Amino acid sequence: MTTDPVALTAELVRCPSITPEEGGALSLLEERLSRAGFACTRVDRGGIANLYARWGAAGHPRSFGFNGHTDVVPLGDPEAWTMPPFGAEIRDGILYGRGATDMKSGVAAFAAAAIDFVTATPPDGAVILAITGDEEGVATDGTVALLDWMQEKGEAMSVCLVGEPTCPETLGEMMKIGRRGSLTARFRARGRQGHVAYPHRALNPMPALVRLLDRLAGRELDQGTDHFDASTLAITTIDVGNPANNVIPAEGRATVNIRFNDAHSADSLTTWMQEECDAIAADTGVTIEMEASCSGESFVTPPGPLSDLVAGAVEAETGIRPVLSTSGGTSDARFVKDHCPVVEFGLVGRTMHQVDECVEVAQIEALKAIYLRCLRDYFAQ
Amino acid sequence: MTTDPVALTAELVRCPSITPEEGGALSLLEERLSRAGFACTRVDRGGIANLYARWGAAGHPRSFGFNGHTDVVPLGDPEAWTMPPFGAEIRDGILYGRGATDMKSGVAAFAAAAIDFVTATPPDGAVILAITGDEEGVATDGTVALLDWMQEKGEAMSVCLVGEPTCPETLGEMMKIGRRGSLTARFRARGRQGHVAYPHRALNPMPALVRLLDRLAGRELDQGTDHFDASTLAITTIDVGNPANNVIPAEGRATVNIRFNDAHSADSLTTWMQEECDAIAADTGVTIEMEASCSGESFVTPPGPLSDLVAGAVEAETGIRPVLSTSGGTSDARFVKDHCPVVEFGLVGRTMHQVDECVEVAQIEALKAIYLRCLRDYFAQ
Ligand SMILES: [Zn+2]
Ligand SMILES: [Zn+2]
Repeated sequence: MTTDPVALTAELVRCPSITPEEGGALSLLEERLSRAGFACTRVDRGGIANLYARWGAAGHPRSFGFNGHTDVVPLGDPEAWTMPPFGAEIRDGILYGRGATDMKSGVAAFAAAAIDFVTATPPDGAVILAITGDEEGVATDGTVALLDWMQEKGEAMSVCLVGEPTCPETLGEMMKIGRRGSLTARFRARGRQGHVAYPHRALNPMPALVRLLDRLAGRELDQGTDHFDASTLAITTIDVGNPANNVIPAEGRATVNIRFNDAHSADSLTTWMQEECDAIAADTGVTIEMEASCSGESFVTPPGPLSDLVAGAVEAETGIRPVLSTSGGTSDARFVKDHCPVVEFGLVGRTMHQVDECVEVAQIEALKAIYLRCLRDYFAQ
Repeated sequence: MTTDPVALTAELVRCPSITPEEGGALSLLEERLSRAGFACTRVDRGGIANLYARWGAAGHPRSFGFNGHTDVVPLGDPEAWTMPPFGAEIRDGILYGRGATDMKSGVAAFAAAAIDFVTATPPDGAVILAITGDEEGVATDGTVALLDWMQEKGEAMSVCLVGEPTCPETLGEMMKIGRRGSLTARFRARGRQGHVAYPHRALNPMPALVRLLDRLAGRELDQGTDHFDASTLAITTIDVGNPANNVIPAEGRATVNIRFNDAHSADSLTTWMQEECDAIAADTGVTIEMEASCSGESFVTPPGPLSDLVAGAVEAETGIRPVLSTSGGTSDARFVKDHCPVVEFGLVGRTMHQVDECVEVAQIEALKAIYLRCLRDYFAQ
């Protein structure tokens, strides 16, 4: 008898596990995995629930790990949903609900694959599932807590496959081998308030601020590198809040976010922006303060045995050879990469975080088959 | 017996005439002027009180006019005042209160001068006082209402002296013979919202907006003209209000205000800015809408008999030859200029609109003497 990943997805979707609520999702998995012989440990930290499940000997030098999360983002406007957001209703082969793609189906697929694999063909090695309840939140007590705990206990994954959605349109077309870094810089330009009729008595900070932002946004950061698209910089907001059109404001604020590849680091970008600030401040007399914070440097697991293994399994099951990409937003792979080679492969993510989030039932089954083949191929080597 | 302009200033300051409240100020003036033989008419419009007072024959071809206002701006933070704002208390030769400089002292000085002049030496001509209660507000029912009414009734001033504060530091140093125009343009740049990790799926309007503003603020509009300082452009606000540093905003707004001289017009500037918008919109694909509104074109009464007369009186009384300036904010002279030559001369305006607004008692007396000399010299010609 095999494990039905669609039924398991539906059960997980019915757990209202909006971050930081556990919602019963991890308890459910703990129960199923324990029954199949996995040693389960709840690694809870800072009000967040996480689950570590291992089949096989602790510290075995050959261990295949999966990483994923059961927490989901809020519903947005609940009135806008046409299907019950925690109902897991299936209509015309589509399962609806919050987390249907991101990523309760991914977790269900790798849990079902792992259970079936160790049951049918117990490997000489370990299969590890590191599942967190804090990926959509600040992520400080999620996968990081699991990795900290593993290190402390001498537990380790030889390789790790993260089950996040990775395919833009068609299952199989893309996997992720890294991510760009993310750096946010907040600027505050300060001058001297005054009346627009007497600009020489005031010092308008806004010309300096728009010139700075024009320079930053106008710069080509790079043209992409071996494994990465070009780095990009976005002005996300500018705010002054001056309602009086006869008043020169005293100060203005702006924020930019940079998604950067391995041609840069948070440090090199911060230095560049600070130099631009200083040059414009010197030209204009306007004081420009910058506060930069990096939520993750860029990282990549260069194409090699792990990406070959996963890409081969994907191609065997779907007929499509996945592109090895480093595009898109951040994921917990940024934490795992400090411990072992890590890649990501999962479903089509089109409806993630949206109203009426949904997944094709057939894709959940295909994903389980891919994960199962990864396990088989890994331990057959 | 002469009229005491300090006592009259104090009486006016005690009238709480914050726009649009009449506060008893115009009634007080009507009573004093009527008693001195002025024909007084209340020209009220749209909830605003205005006073027209004429000594001499209606429609006399030789008439000297004064223009001013009795309304005052709000107190700001009443707790911040150290003197009663409507108390008109005098301490060490300084009279304190809202409107002390802007411009109840100016109105008191020209009313006292006019009363004393027609009483002592009745001229062959008319002396006209056009006093409004709506200069600090939207000004649509103030001096404009008086001028409309005068035109309708066949009343006219041959020349007009506006009694607004004009001196930066020292009484006598500056008079105004015109003003720059004021044009406000509001921009709305619209793109397409998206996630910063996928900028190619979004269209960030902010780079276009900052480039536009950099171009506008970076342009030298002119280097000044015969009677005017250089035109200036101020970015007064930019507002997006996007709190999420991983979201590319759909739209941004900005406002600029231009104070322009006679090298430009509201039309020429609007055309220039529209061209800049169109060029950047074409480059970037961002939609940029502009709404421009002009609160007054530039104007000037070129140096001539009227400015000579006033400057001569100022020099005779203070020993200082006033500079003929067109600097500063707007005034009701912008309406009067369509009817007759107009110049402005008044007190030191340093504390206008501020907490603890105040005026030197000696300056009120000096100002009355200057206005009296203007009347004598005008009718002596
Ligand atoms: Zn996710
Ligand atoms: Zn005024």
